[in-house]
Amino acid sequence: MTNPEQNNIEETRRGTLSACARDGDRRRLVGLVEAEHTADLAKAFAHLGADDQERLIELWPTEAVGELLGELAEHYSRDFFDRADHRLAARALAVLPADEAADLLDDLEEDPRRAILRAMPKDSAAEIDELLAYPEDTAGGRMSLDFVSVDVDLDVGRAQDQIQRSIGEEQHTNLYLTDPQARLCGVVHMERLASAPRNTPVARLGEEDYPAVRPELDQEELAALFQRYDLLAVPVTDSDGLLLGEITVDDVLDVLREEATEDIFKMAATSDEELEVKSAFSVVRLRLPWLLICLGGALLSGTIIGLFSYALEQVIALASFIPVITAMGGNAGLQSSTVVVRNLALGRAEPRNILRTALRELRVGLLLGAFSGLIVGLAAWAIVGQPMLGLVVGLAMIGAIMVATVVGTYMPLLFKRIGVDPAVASGPFITTANDMIGLTIYLGLGMLMLEWLL
Amino acid sequence: MTNPEQNNIEETRRGTLSACARDGDRRRLVGLVEAEHTADLAKAFAHLGADDQERLIELWPTEAVGELLGELAEHYSRDFFDRADHRLAARALAVLPADEAADLLDDLEEDPRRAILRAMPKDSAAEIDELLAYPEDTAGGRMSLDFVSVDVDLDVGRAQDQIQRSIGEEQHTNLYLTDPQARLCGVVHMERLASAPRNTPVARLGEEDYPAVRPELDQEELAALFQRYDLLAVPVTDSDGLLLGEITVDDVLDVLREEATEDIFKMAATSDEELEVKSAFSVVRLRLPWLLICLGGALLSGTIIGLFSYALEQVIALASFIPVITAMGGNAGLQSSTVVVRNLALGRAEPRNILRTALRELRVGLLLGAFSGLIVGLAAWAIVGQPMLGLVVGLAMIGAIMVATVVGTYMPLLFKRIGVDPAVASGPFITTANDMIGLTIYLGLGMLMLEWLL
Repeated sequence: MTNPEQNNIEETRRGTLSACARDGDRRRLVGLVEAEHTADLAKAFAHLGADDQERLIELWPTEAVGELLGELAEHYSRDFFDRADHRLAARALAVLPADEAADLLDDLEEDPRRAILRAMPKDSAAEIDELLAYPEDTAGGRMSLDFVSVDVDLDVGRAQDQIQRSIGEEQHTNLYLTDPQARLCGVVHMERLASAPRNTPVARLGEEDYPAVRPELDQEELAALFQRYDLLAVPVTDSDGLLLGEITVDDVLDVLREEATEDIFKMAATSDEELEVKSAFSVVRLRLPWLLICLGGALLSGTIIGLFSYALEQVIALASFIPVITAMGGNAGLQSSTVVVRNLALGRAEPRNILRTALRELRVGLLLGAFSGLIVGLAAWAIVGQPMLGLVVGLAMIGAIMVATVVGTYMPLLFKRIGVDPAVASGPFITTANDMIGLTIYLGLGMLMLEWLL
Repeated sequence: MTNPEQNNIEETRRGTLSACARDGDRRRLVGLVEAEHTADLAKAFAHLGADDQERLIELWPTEAVGELLGELAEHYSRDFFDRADHRLAARALAVLPADEAADLLDDLEEDPRRAILRAMPKDSAAEIDELLAYPEDTAGGRMSLDFVSVDVDLDVGRAQDQIQRSIGEEQHTNLYLTDPQARLCGVVHMERLASAPRNTPVARLGEEDYPAVRPELDQEELAALFQRYDLLAVPVTDSDGLLLGEITVDDVLDVLREEATEDIFKMAATSDEELEVKSAFSVVRLRLPWLLICLGGALLSGTIIGLFSYALEQVIALASFIPVITAMGGNAGLQSSTVVVRNLALGRAEPRNILRTALRELRVGLLLGAFSGLIVGLAAWAIVGQPMLGLVVGLAMIGAIMVATVVGTYMPLLFKRIGVDPAVASGPFITTANDMIGLTIYLGLGMLMLEWLL
């Protein structure tokens, strides 16, 4: 992501900030604040010690401290707000757009949240309270209240004059047209407004087809909508058509990143909460349940081995290939399930495709099994010096890999049908199932062919 | 992603299109084209059979067929363009913005690409050729040539009049100011242009700090830039400051999705090329190399078991817990490595954090190992009825899980340091290493304590 040069620049910046704090050098700090982007300074600031941070806040130019706190709030929330006092936090959040402040407060415990809200200006607190009412992962929870709207009856000149007053930090791409009851009745792209003659009615510049979403829309569907229609912003309206807020594409970038992280962590049998928690105990709390499910499955696999202990006692060399069968089945199953899970997440899993994919996976399983089976069979023959053992291991490998690809393909689809997130299936469930089936095939075959193995 | 209701709507739409094709019902089709969004129609179209598609193209209203082909080109490229003839493909690509056309052509084989380019209008082909010169995963490969720029010396009124002519399908958020040598000297947000008095010089509306990127910038760094500064568009300039093109945020959405897919597939020991290839043989070609690496590792694990076959022969019950040790080590290692890989991808892995994370993972490993070891130890005692076997299995589990978390944490970091994508490490390498170490601990311990196990 970052190259070494970039890292050097960042370390220098951190060093300079630290030096300013240590020496109380306000002049040097002012120079730095004028020269650099607040996002970069905030990143450096977030990595300093608490003492340096406190001293810097005192030294920071008054007119710029709000922006710094805002950046900290947006990108480095937990680290900083866990330590900051409530008045400082309230000051930072008041600078932020209400939706970002609400997202941040949503992550805090009830008590500090109340305390910070009380320390904020009344009108900001009221806006944030309104947003906190929507679940975080819906359009309502993501929307911004900082949108630009004008009366639908205005002409371009009047609209241009009006929006001049509302231009602030955030860049707007849409102008919303509303009727006297504040109902949405049109969307105008800013570039159209910029290029139209002043006496044109704004209503005439409106887009023909514009999507509007309800606050309860799930954020994944929201992200899909943006990607499908290449949108920059959509209005959020209630059931009466009242304009409530706006979702912008930068919110969607956050959603996409979060959803990808969530899927990746689920596939590894843990949770994306890991990015938030700090203590080893909290991490254990997130991971242990999955490991225990895995342990249950593994003990079942062990029981299967126990059932065939007679064969193992007779031909101890059979034991050597147990991890070969389980590791290969596990990997082949993971490959198949990952393809399915990702296709589902990208919305590419049409019913027609599913059948096609499943048939293909079966052929893939046969081919992968045949290759691997041949190699492992020859290897077993070479290592143990017994051709029949090679045959047993090779045949079992073909069976185990074929089953693994089919289980890996269908288990996520099954999970989706019963309403469980398919990414969950990719982890321990598929591996456990494949271990058990693979071992049964392998040791069962060994038992059947025992007399040739002795 | 999609709810059942949505699926119904989509199936109805597909059915209607299919019926129009079968009956040659041009009037019904025209009604549909007027009523629905082209993106939705294109999705339905893409899922029809080749016969239906050909008949529909003949029936489609002439003025709208370009837009349909454009949508098809953007979202459903391979399926359609694999079959379409070159003139139809050229017609579709000429409708698309040059950057999207170039992306598509980049995916085709050399011969059809040349043929399609020859069938296109000369100026479109020239633009596309220019873009094809940049690697696909760089700013140059992603940039659009369809940006809006005016002379820096104009006033707002003149600029507004000028851009009126260049407004098209794509929504623009930035106006670029250039000097007579076409060098970039300012960026104006469209909403500022929309709200400024006509006699203001445009130069005065320019943003103070605006990022510009070079065409060779990697797309991951580009995406990070957009996210860090919440950008909607950035200009691309060469070393002389010449304005070459523009990257817009919808390109970044694509990049984020692709990068996440790439990481997920690598972690599952295959490649995101799987989304492109169709035949079982191509899939096998992508997956088999990884399985063979895994096989090599598994055979080494088998060799370790072979080394301890004396112990296994004496106490066959030891064999039952082989899959327990490997499965638990594998899962614990995957959990740790996933956290590290994702932190690296999100750019959150600061040197300071890495040490902190590693220390935490060690504590996590100890706790997870202790819990799991206790449970599996008791289970082994209960199942086999031998307390000493429980002790061996339990202690081995603690060791195996602790090693697995440490290997899972450090292997991706090691891979990154030697210049290999850390997502690759998450798959077979970590599992194989953990299998071997876990089995050595387990069977070694069994050998040492053999006299108490008999």
